[in-house]
Amino acid sequence: MNVAIVGATGYGGIQAVNLLKKIKKYKISFLGGNKTSGSKWNENFPFIYLDNDPYIEEISVDNISKNADVALLCLPNGLSSTLTRKLLDRGLKVIDLSADYRYKSLDEWKNVYSKEAAIYKRNDDDLCKEAVYGLPEINKEAISKGRLIACPGCYPTSALIPLVPYLSQGIIENEGIVIDSKSGTSGGGREPNQKLLLSECGEGLSAYGLINHRHTSEIEQVASLISGNKIELLFTPHLVPISRGMHSTIYGRLRDPGLTSDDCRILLDNYYRNFKNIKVLPVDTFPSTKWVKNTNQIFLSVKVDIRNGRIIILSAIDNLLKGQTGQAIQNLNLMSGFSMDEGLDLTNNFP
Amino acid sequence: MNVAIVGATGYGGIQAVNLLKKIKKYKISFLGGNKTSGSKWNENFPFIYLDNDPYIEEISVDNISKNADVALLCLPNGLSSTLTRKLLDRGLKVIDLSADYRYKSLDEWKNVYSKEAAIYKRNDDDLCKEAVYGLPEINKEAISKGRLIACPGCYPTSALIPLVPYLSQGIIENEGIVIDSKSGTSGGGREPNQKLLLSECGEGLSAYGLINHRHTSEIEQVASLISGNKIELLFTPHLVPISRGMHSTIYGRLRDPGLTSDDCRILLDNYYRNFKNIKVLPVDTFPSTKWVKNTNQIFLSVKVDIRNGRIIILSAIDNLLKGQTGQAIQNLNLMSGFSMDEGLDLTNNFP
Amino acid sequence: MNVAIVGATGYGGIQAVNLLKKIKKYKISFLGGNKTSGSKWNENFPFIYLDNDPYIEEISVDNISKNADVALLCLPNGLSSTLTRKLLDRGLKVIDLSADYRYKSLDEWKNVYSKEAAIYKRNDDDLCKEAVYGLPEINKEAISKGRLIACPGCYPTSALIPLVPYLSQGIIENEGIVIDSKSGTSGGGREPNQKLLLSECGEGLSAYGLINHRHTSEIEQVASLISGNKIELLFTPHLVPISRGMHSTIYGRLRDPGLTSDDCRILLDNYYRNFKNIKVLPVDTFPSTKWVKNTNQIFLSVKVDIRNGRIIILSAIDNLLKGQTGQAIQNLNLMSGFSMDEGLDLTNNFP
Amino acid sequence: MNVAIVGATGYGGIQAVNLLKKIKKYKISFLGGNKTSGSKWNENFPFIYLDNDPYIEEISVDNISKNADVALLCLPNGLSSTLTRKLLDRGLKVIDLSADYRYKSLDEWKNVYSKEAAIYKRNDDDLCKEAVYGLPEINKEAISKGRLIACPGCYPTSALIPLVPYLSQGIIENEGIVIDSKSGTSGGGREPNQKLLLSECGEGLSAYGLINHRHTSEIEQVASLISGNKIELLFTPHLVPISRGMHSTIYGRLRDPGLTSDDCRILLDNYYRNFKNIKVLPVDTFPSTKWVKNTNQIFLSVKVDIRNGRIIILSAIDNLLKGQTGQAIQNLNLMSGFSMDEGLDLTNNFP
Repeated sequence: MNVAIVGATGYGGIQAVNLLKKIKKYKISFLGGNKTSGSKWNENFPFIYLDNDPYIEEISVDNISKNADVALLCLPNGLSSTLTRKLLDRGLKVIDLSADYRYKSLDEWKNVYSKEAAIYKRNDDDLCKEAVYGLPEINKEAISKGRLIACPGCYPTSALIPLVPYLSQGIIENEGIVIDSKSGTSGGGREPNQKLLLSECGEGLSAYGLINHRHTSEIEQVASLISGNKIELLFTPHLVPISRGMHSTIYGRLRDPGLTSDDCRILLDNYYRNFKNIKVLPVDTFPSTKWVKNTNQIFLSVKVDIRNGRIIILSAIDNLLKGQTGQAIQNLNLMSGFSMDEGLDLTNNFP
Repeated sequence: MNVAIVGATGYGGIQAVNLLKKIKKYKISFLGGNKTSGSKWNENFPFIYLDNDPYIEEISVDNISKNADVALLCLPNGLSSTLTRKLLDRGLKVIDLSADYRYKSLDEWKNVYSKEAAIYKRNDDDLCKEAVYGLPEINKEAISKGRLIACPGCYPTSALIPLVPYLSQGIIENEGIVIDSKSGTSGGGREPNQKLLLSECGEGLSAYGLINHRHTSEIEQVASLISGNKIELLFTPHLVPISRGMHSTIYGRLRDPGLTSDDCRILLDNYYRNFKNIKVLPVDTFPSTKWVKNTNQIFLSVKVDIRNGRIIILSAIDNLLKGQTGQAIQNLNLMSGFSMDEGLDLTNNFP
Repeated sequence: MNVAIVGATGYGGIQAVNLLKKIKKYKISFLGGNKTSGSKWNENFPFIYLDNDPYIEEISVDNISKNADVALLCLPNGLSSTLTRKLLDRGLKVIDLSADYRYKSLDEWKNVYSKEAAIYKRNDDDLCKEAVYGLPEINKEAISKGRLIACPGCYPTSALIPLVPYLSQGIIENEGIVIDSKSGTSGGGREPNQKLLLSECGEGLSAYGLINHRHTSEIEQVASLISGNKIELLFTPHLVPISRGMHSTIYGRLRDPGLTSDDCRILLDNYYRNFKNIKVLPVDTFPSTKWVKNTNQIFLSVKVDIRNGRIIILSAIDNLLKGQTGQAIQNLNLMSGFSMDEGLDLTNNFP
Repeated sequence: MNVAIVGATGYGGIQAVNLLKKIKKYKISFLGGNKTSGSKWNENFPFIYLDNDPYIEEISVDNISKNADVALLCLPNGLSSTLTRKLLDRGLKVIDLSADYRYKSLDEWKNVYSKEAAIYKRNDDDLCKEAVYGLPEINKEAISKGRLIACPGCYPTSALIPLVPYLSQGIIENEGIVIDSKSGTSGGGREPNQKLLLSECGEGLSAYGLINHRHTSEIEQVASLISGNKIELLFTPHLVPISRGMHSTIYGRLRDPGLTSDDCRILLDNYYRNFKNIKVLPVDTFPSTKWVKNTNQIFLSVKVDIRNGRIIILSAIDNLLKGQTGQAIQNLNLMSGFSMDEGLDLTNNFP
């Protein structure tokens, strides 16, 4: 399988190079990056050495599709949509890491991503409808057969994997769910940004995007679908001074207040028992993002306040792997007929 | 005023030295620390230079009470209670930074601090009842007249200051409150501890003490008192790789879902308008712990989800100052008839 | 004294606001910043609250000189020189934090700052000659009488204070000096910069500017002057993942290999005994940058390899205070006839 | 090959588990750790999951030698020597990560490790003489045939690999070498230690062990051997607030001051051209420890001050891999007849 990495010099693209370089079943056929196009890879990334030292090329449909079977789009929101239909028309499969195809309707996207919608005049509601939401633990079958995969956002991944088992089985109330998430700075991307300077965000912690963060709508869309009811929830992201890592603390109310922490743990464990990359920890063992760093794992833990039937679910992922490119490669693996975990590290290198 | 610092070599004590050294109205009459007793201060702390270079002395009632008007107890939970009555009997005022007198009944303390209760056989329910909860923005009068002050925990401080205005006026529902807090590592103290090694907790984030953290009961006690109703809530602390700083994100439900973010902001602003160390930020400005680091301030921000009347309140403090010793000095100031903010920095040295 | 802060929104300017706001003897008469001009200060910096909430104004000679006695220029290299003569002509004193007047000849500046020299066509060799090098522990008299002060770079400050006593008295050889320095990221400024993103430089350490760093020439110029001989040395800066702090480890060879660590320590101690902000530590106590953070102190330590008469001198400063704005305020104090340390913190708030 | 990991719960041991678990050619036959003996591995390390979940066992010669071909001793200095002879006598090969066999004479060890020598009464000068210094890029042949390997310290590894090519060929002067090294905190081990608490060492940098650090003597011993002359040098370690990573900046004087940076780079490149884990960077590309983190690589860079023939050589390694356990596995690979790099990651997962 030949894979074109489109947007190779951001964190999404860099992870893709790192991962694909280690998996013999794939060949990187194209490295696209407009700012550095024309220069050699190793000159830009001496620390991610590629033996053949390819050129970074201009991003264009022709260049991408030259030798590729699949295009991995690691591009800013909106930009992906300018390439996707053309790439599909040339027979490529597309795995999109942006938000462009995460909504089931273009209108919803335009509503949430209004700034991007003002720049990119999209007319591909059909592709929004066709696209498969690339959460492989939930959507395995559809992904395997899909030709356009919309990879979930990092926050939605960290929130939905713990929530889905409870929502789909009606274990927790639809109302009153709170998701308090914390992300490392690499989630903000690799573009120069004052707020993400170590001097500015080091030795500090803050919330951002209260109520209105775009991922709220993404989580609500999928959660509503899964539960069969319209779900409105509170989601608060926080910026933490670590490079990579994401942690979500999720609060809900049990329908049956008699359930114990153990009951809830077993339920989660059963739901995901076939997924090697999902680890449900013993009750009272709480995951650190450090435990999953540089891996494609998600660690989960659950506890119940038996006084009143409230439940807390914790999740920890590496935001650039399970939260982004690792998940994209899971999807690529499924689309290629390989094992979902092929080439993805499930062992952490603590500390 | 002569102040004895009992337990001078932990973070609580070090901050006390730092703060009192700058305030001419106070004189440090005693520095107590058992492990280093007999050695000189400057030898142990060349970076907190004291001109007279006093000895660190053995902790005993005699030593403490020699020249002191007030004793600042920066000791582990349980240990404070072995000294307090004797110091009071000798006419000293006592400001206790431990949890020993935070509960209105000794039984409640024994229940929550069972491990310490097994070691220290306490018999001072009368003092538990007498002690004033040292949250100066709430309890100013009582503190001014008190002879035994129980300084709040860092988490309770960060949670109660934002909650009190809403609870006391019945603005938010008593049920379903969620407090998601994040603390720097200095909250865990200065004793060697594997979990707090930079190698172990750097570049990571994790929750701990789910459901059962001791501060849950402390917050619930005060919140119940303030609201006039028994309150059960969810509180989750997280460890963040910064030395100092504490952030709480608090979720609740408005009784009147028609209130806007602005309404709720104004309410907070009015409630605390006489307190120079409390800053209510404009709507959509979210505080970083970095903004209050090394100061005795608390920054607040509030936002409402107008779809459903949910409210989010944010607070940021320096866990060692407003969350601990700075607050203790506020209490000391009140007890001494000074301005509450005397000698306490309200200007941050960003970055 | 009315002080104009020119370039108020970078780290140099922010520190100036922070420091001057606390010193009653000074009044901030002007806050200049082109990008944010026209907006209010508190809106930009809610965490550095100014009671009168002044506007940030356009940087121009007229605006600066309106009410000011002194201008503090916190501007990029080259830009300072476009304002300085005009401000001096209007009777203001100028304290320049850039490198524009650090060299005794304009040609030397043009040689080292060739990039800036291509943009700014300077013709003020007379001012280069007039300017006083603002290292107050060395140049106290001249600074007190000067009208144009060129504040030293952060690295030169951290290297020269430890070296001067030994060089001026011929204790160490002029040849073979090595200065290995480590800086926090705030030394790189507040402008967005990919290399200074926490994601890029967190959890890493690297050297930069080997051999050719501009501060090499600045250190060599002053060291040569002090020693009376042309000195060529090796200086290597490193970037360390802390916001503020600078550490220099300096290696030299004693002329008299019989000198002990104690001899060398006493020599340093005697040389600086009148300076409260300089602390010479006991032999085998080694300073951490954390010990001087947020203060205007410099901590020194020295040790000799008695096998062969090699000497190692350590220094630690806060790069934004003693390494930059704190030192500028020392100069301002001297020019205003105040004590050098007026309003400058000499007590650290560890941890 | 069956490998016993002795001291499995410190950082050396943890890395060994992590690495060996991924290499099919090896089987972990024993996990030894006294404090946790009797408990299961996964319970202690849920984030380094072992499918068979073995018990951690008491450290004894019998337990270690039960099924093992090789013992990897990840023990404190001195303790290794109590096991080594007995293990060798039972036919095991021993790879020791401590300093016990790094010196060619027991007396030298006793001299440097006097504290340990007072506890452990050693009588194995013959083993000191037999032991092979486990720097595989220098000692490949001897390691392949050895039965007792003394793995180098992390600092010596980071200093010797860059120095050996120049010393062995007489390119740099033997006198006046300066090694300024910076290490992450994991180099200080996993035992609770106040100085290594994030609160104490985060946001700070300091030197330690000036002149007398034990690794000085180790570097001098090997450097003297390589150059054929007695070498005395200056080595200064610094503690940097990162978990893993080590950087050395090495200063020397060229015998032939006419050599350029390019000459010196080519020389290094040629010397190590057969080693895939050693990367010599282009002139003016300076390695970050982040570039080699989690890999067994060492990155080198070199630059000459053409004014005076001084040379600076930089090296960056992961102190726990190339600086410790990764190197031990290189040695294990050589002793097992495998490729040196077998199972060792040479691709970094930036950022």
